[in-house]
Amino acid sequence: MDVASLPWVPVAGCRAPTVWRERDGIGVLDQTLLPYERATRHLSSVDQVAEAIRVMRVRGAPLIGATAAYGVAIAMTVDAGDAALDAAVALLGGTRPTAVNLHWALERMAGRLRPLPVADRPVVAWAEAEAIADDDAALCAAIGRHGLPVLRRLAERRGGPVRVLTHCNAGWLATCGIGTALAPVFTAVADGVPVEVVVSETRPRSQGLLTAWELREAGVPHTLVADNAAGFLLATGAVDVVITGADRIAANGDAANKVGTYLKALAAHAAGVPFHIAAPSSTLDLACPDGTAIPIEDRGPDEVCTVRGLDATGRVAEVRLAPAGTRTANPAFDVTPAHLVSGYITERGVLGAGALADVFGRSGR
Amino acid sequence: MDVASLPWVPVAGCRAPTVWRERDGIGVLDQTLLPYERATRHLSSVDQVAEAIRVMRVRGAPLIGATAAYGVAIAMTVDAGDAALDAAVALLGGTRPTAVNLHWALERMAGRLRPLPVADRPVVAWAEAEAIADDDAALCAAIGRHGLPVLRRLAERRGGPVRVLTHCNAGWLATCGIGTALAPVFTAVADGVPVEVVVSETRPRSQGLLTAWELREAGVPHTLVADNAAGFLLATGAVDVVITGADRIAANGDAANKVGTYLKALAAHAAGVPFHIAAPSSTLDLACPDGTAIPIEDRGPDEVCTVRGLDATGRVAEVRLAPAGTRTANPAFDVTPAHLVSGYITERGVLGAGALADVFGRSGR
Repeated sequence: MDVASLPWVPVAGCRAPTVWRERDGIGVLDQTLLPYERATRHLSSVDQVAEAIRVMRVRGAPLIGATAAYGVAIAMTVDAGDAALDAAVALLGGTRPTAVNLHWALERMAGRLRPLPVADRPVVAWAEAEAIADDDAALCAAIGRHGLPVLRRLAERRGGPVRVLTHCNAGWLATCGIGTALAPVFTAVADGVPVEVVVSETRPRSQGLLTAWELREAGVPHTLVADNAAGFLLATGAVDVVITGADRIAANGDAANKVGTYLKALAAHAAGVPFHIAAPSSTLDLACPDGTAIPIEDRGPDEVCTVRGLDATGRVAEVRLAPAGTRTANPAFDVTPAHLVSGYITERGVLGAGALADVFGRSGR
Repeated sequence: MDVASLPWVPVAGCRAPTVWRERDGIGVLDQTLLPYERATRHLSSVDQVAEAIRVMRVRGAPLIGATAAYGVAIAMTVDAGDAALDAAVALLGGTRPTAVNLHWALERMAGRLRPLPVADRPVVAWAEAEAIADDDAALCAAIGRHGLPVLRRLAERRGGPVRVLTHCNAGWLATCGIGTALAPVFTAVADGVPVEVVVSETRPRSQGLLTAWELREAGVPHTLVADNAAGFLLATGAVDVVITGADRIAANGDAANKVGTYLKALAAHAAGVPFHIAAPSSTLDLACPDGTAIPIEDRGPDEVCTVRGLDATGRVAEVRLAPAGTRTANPAFDVTPAHLVSGYITERGVLGAGALADVFGRSGR
């Protein structure tokens, strides 16, 4: 399968062309080149998979989880012994600290494989990774279904397009399906509900440009804004609802998501605009009592001091904003406290913070 | 005077090399090229001055005011009649809608010149413009003096460097003196108080890079962060105080400043961190009852869709982030409501919102 030249229109329940089994390994859409170049990359070793996650060739909490699962399958193809399994889980688990879907997927893989005879593990590992990815596509579809009435109500109340502010990219690029935060958007558009999306640039990695690209390909009206503009737009009534994804939701509902999310939640709260988090239960970490226990990754100075775009000749180029040696702080995530979240759009419905642990307790998942 | 190759270390009360009289017009430091190239530009017509303000060769509310005053003087040199005076004031007043210092300076010029015989106007116009710029340097010094104890107290309480978060550039580049928000910083550093500055990038125009440049030249420790990081840093105790400038302060204390300021004020409030606005009384608009009456400029899509930096060969280059035709919203300012402001650091002291109108009523200015 080569998706490099194919546009993909999000269809609920279908697998997105973000990660797929291919020859002796997997193929991924290389998101470090997007939105400027649409290129795929073949990964045939667990080290290559770990690198792809670390440098964000694949990104987005659900997609990181599924890709790591495939990484375990690749490792099992070479050596399916216990030591190799442990090493693969440790290597992949150490790539990104905040998104809990990574650990969820690795635990699911290890839990499935460990009881099996070594000889059976490779085949089962591939099947399980495939199941994780397929499940994610189904979870995205369910999130879209449950988010649809939220957007429809707001559009009806307004008598016009519902204006959704989102942050970072939580569309199909971040998942194996139609996305998390964008799942309600794509579902609403397919259902004839008028939607306009306000896309936040999301410095320093500018994942908002991925969101704008997705929306452009899908023909969804959207407006690109600097991250700083969110407060003004919320305070002046230009946004009807904020929806973001999440990388880890603590048991009390505190949610880590891409840095800047918290600022939007504060501004939405001040403006009386609903702020929703859309995420599958694989993002929920019931072992984490609250947001203070969520580890926050710092990704170093390069991302802050440089920007990538197209130069005057149309080639991808990086420009340097600040001299090498400039001291930076680059937290990749922040924590939005539960009291700022109006609802969690999950595969089981739109829940309040208090219901998360009940609905998704160990038995419930 | 050619300052192109001279570093300038901020000295309280001295004129900054941002605008100066030169031959048949004025010289300005061209801030559209900073922090990459230090170049000056000679402006010898009122049209050139208006263009320089509009495209932000000169920027920062106090500096815009002083530059516009010089623009009137240039106009008077050519034709000092009433019609020419009115035309110059109208042209310059229409360049930027939000910063009120522009109108304050133009009113001061017109008020001084209109009663005079036409023949006397050119000489007086230059003297008055020079006085506005000199006054601004003195105002900056006074703001620094009044802000100093705020920073000293916080440093003493912490037993270490006081960590000041600022937004945009409100340093000497934005004024004719040592800045507004950075005046307390430069004054504290000169007084031996340890200070570290957290510099917010300030997309879409990245004026934070100007602030980082000023601080680097002055040897003040600083950390550059993406705008999105402010919430995380405030929530996790990494900031002791926020100080920004302002472009217009309404009578009730609501303050328009560079877009993104409001988000920082919300996060500071939530974290119990003091949020101060440093501005001279020329930024106060008592005719404006509250923030809803402040006009907010939208600067169009180019700033959002492009970024300027140094390319691989070290040359200034612009890269395009999003295709031409991408719809954007680009409000250049937002309004921070008075209840989020801990204090206004003015030339008359650190005031509460309720004291602004009393202290700076018509008679008091």
